[in-house]
Amino acid sequence: MKICQTIASIRDFVRSVRNKGPVGLVPTMGYFHEGHLALMRRARQECTTVVVSIFVNPIQFGPSEDYETYPRNTERDLHLAREAGVDAVFIPGAAEMYPEGYATYVDVERLTDKLCGRSRPGHFRGVATVVTKLFNIVNPDIAYFGEKDAQQLQVIRKMVRDLNMPVKVVGIPTVREPDGLAMSSRNTYLSPGERRAATVLYRALQQVCRAVAKGERDPVYLQQMMKEIINQEPLVQLEYAEIYQLPDLEPLSVLKGDVLVAVAARCGRARLIDNVRLNMESLGEK
Amino acid sequence: MKICQTIASIRDFVRSVRNKGPVGLVPTMGYFHEGHLALMRRARQECTTVVVSIFVNPIQFGPSEDYETYPRNTERDLHLAREAGVDAVFIPGAAEMYPEGYATYVDVERLTDKLCGRSRPGHFRGVATVVTKLFNIVNPDIAYFGEKDAQQLQVIRKMVRDLNMPVKVVGIPTVREPDGLAMSSRNTYLSPGERRAATVLYRALQQVCRAVAKGERDPVYLQQMMKEIINQEPLVQLEYAEIYQLPDLEPLSVLKGDVLVAVAARCGRARLIDNVRLNMESLGEK
Repeated sequence: MKICQTIASIRDFVRSVRNKGPVGLVPTMGYFHEGHLALMRRARQECTTVVVSIFVNPIQFGPSEDYETYPRNTERDLHLAREAGVDAVFIPGAAEMYPEGYATYVDVERLTDKLCGRSRPGHFRGVATVVTKLFNIVNPDIAYFGEKDAQQLQVIRKMVRDLNMPVKVVGIPTVREPDGLAMSSRNTYLSPGERRAATVLYRALQQVCRAVAKGERDPVYLQQMMKEIINQEPLVQLEYAEIYQLPDLEPLSVLKGDVLVAVAARCGRARLIDNVRLNMESLGEK
Repeated sequence: MKICQTIASIRDFVRSVRNKGPVGLVPTMGYFHEGHLALMRRARQECTTVVVSIFVNPIQFGPSEDYETYPRNTERDLHLAREAGVDAVFIPGAAEMYPEGYATYVDVERLTDKLCGRSRPGHFRGVATVVTKLFNIVNPDIAYFGEKDAQQLQVIRKMVRDLNMPVKVVGIPTVREPDGLAMSSRNTYLSPGERRAATVLYRALQQVCRAVAKGERDPVYLQQMMKEIINQEPLVQLEYAEIYQLPDLEPLSVLKGDVLVAVAARCGRARLIDNVRLNMESLGEK
């Protein structure tokens, strides 16, 4: 497995394998869990060459967020990537990606002014910018992102379509712990008590799924239900529990078509997010 | 010469010639003059395949600007492109480039808050966005831009560097009429009297060149000199006459290194810009 710390070296690597077949990119911030590995395995199935980037992107963190303390373990990450059959890891330093005087940003409007965008101003600008850079550096045919970051996935899909980027974007279902907690590098922040409490996000989402299966279609009722469930958990502070139409994240008055049910909450030092996607047509057919 | 109105068709064309050698792109808004043709000729010299785009980009025009009345003559443009040996013209409609719900924009900060950016808010955002799209659609090895749009050229160079776009940007010197007026599609707006008056921009720039050759290095004095010259012309309303350091367009207190001397003014219906670049080291060597 090739390890590239500079833009020039990963470009050289990709150029050398370009003609062999499709190149897949898995952009990550490292500290791998099974969710990251699921992306790598899918890329391994579909692509001749798999590139993983590991870069804790400073510009997607707010000033009071956890950029400095975000968990890092490069040695373990490289070992896991090698085991997953990755061909090259791109692991640049911050100055390689944002040299002094850096000034260019990519903005996706509307899609970014709700959900996580409301409490994390500038977050999706940072995500869209770094993903644009990674696409231009690696020039992948296919890029893989987790559905756990649902809004991020929609923002990237929209950006790729709007800017005519020659990349196929693939979303991979969320990987969960046995008790339902969505895997996240930030779960490491949780104390044992918080770790137990954190499952309330998944339990609230499951309650929505059950209610919808029974015929409930009122987003206001369902949102209220989620809030009440989450608010019963004293170690968890709800940030949002909302339902939007996919793919444009427009508000909806009755559940139909593709729907995103998304929650975010603080639990100790961790900010946790989770979501489920529901297709009303496929439910109706049952 | 291939004429492509859709993104899919120009992509197919470029894919079919990709392996022959370098692809050059000349992005234009059409209504060709000798300045455009100079870009095409240079591309023809350096590239195996030359693609010209013709697209009057709505998002780089302000609401009170001349998007609707911007001069257009597609038949003549296609004839001139064919004569210049262009291989393909990409001439999309506005809905092909900005379908309903379009939401993604590229911003280059700092470089865009001065000169034309001050009187045309959003202009460079529109330019950076459409150039990003054109680069992603055509995937050129080299792209050609005129030095007449000096700030635009710096913005594009900065964007390409910051976002790691795999494109080489080449600037081509301004082409002038025999009396010095910089060629521009908007010169067609000028009445005969305005056309004569419009040369004052070039005359002011030439006066700066002469003063600098004689040893003047004070930007405040030189700016004032340009303003006085241009203000003597009643048919011309000065917008700015300014001097900045290249490449970052920072203000400077004494002329040194690479310097941009830039002017903008209204003349009848036309907004005219012009500039000269001076290299103080090469002057000093004389």
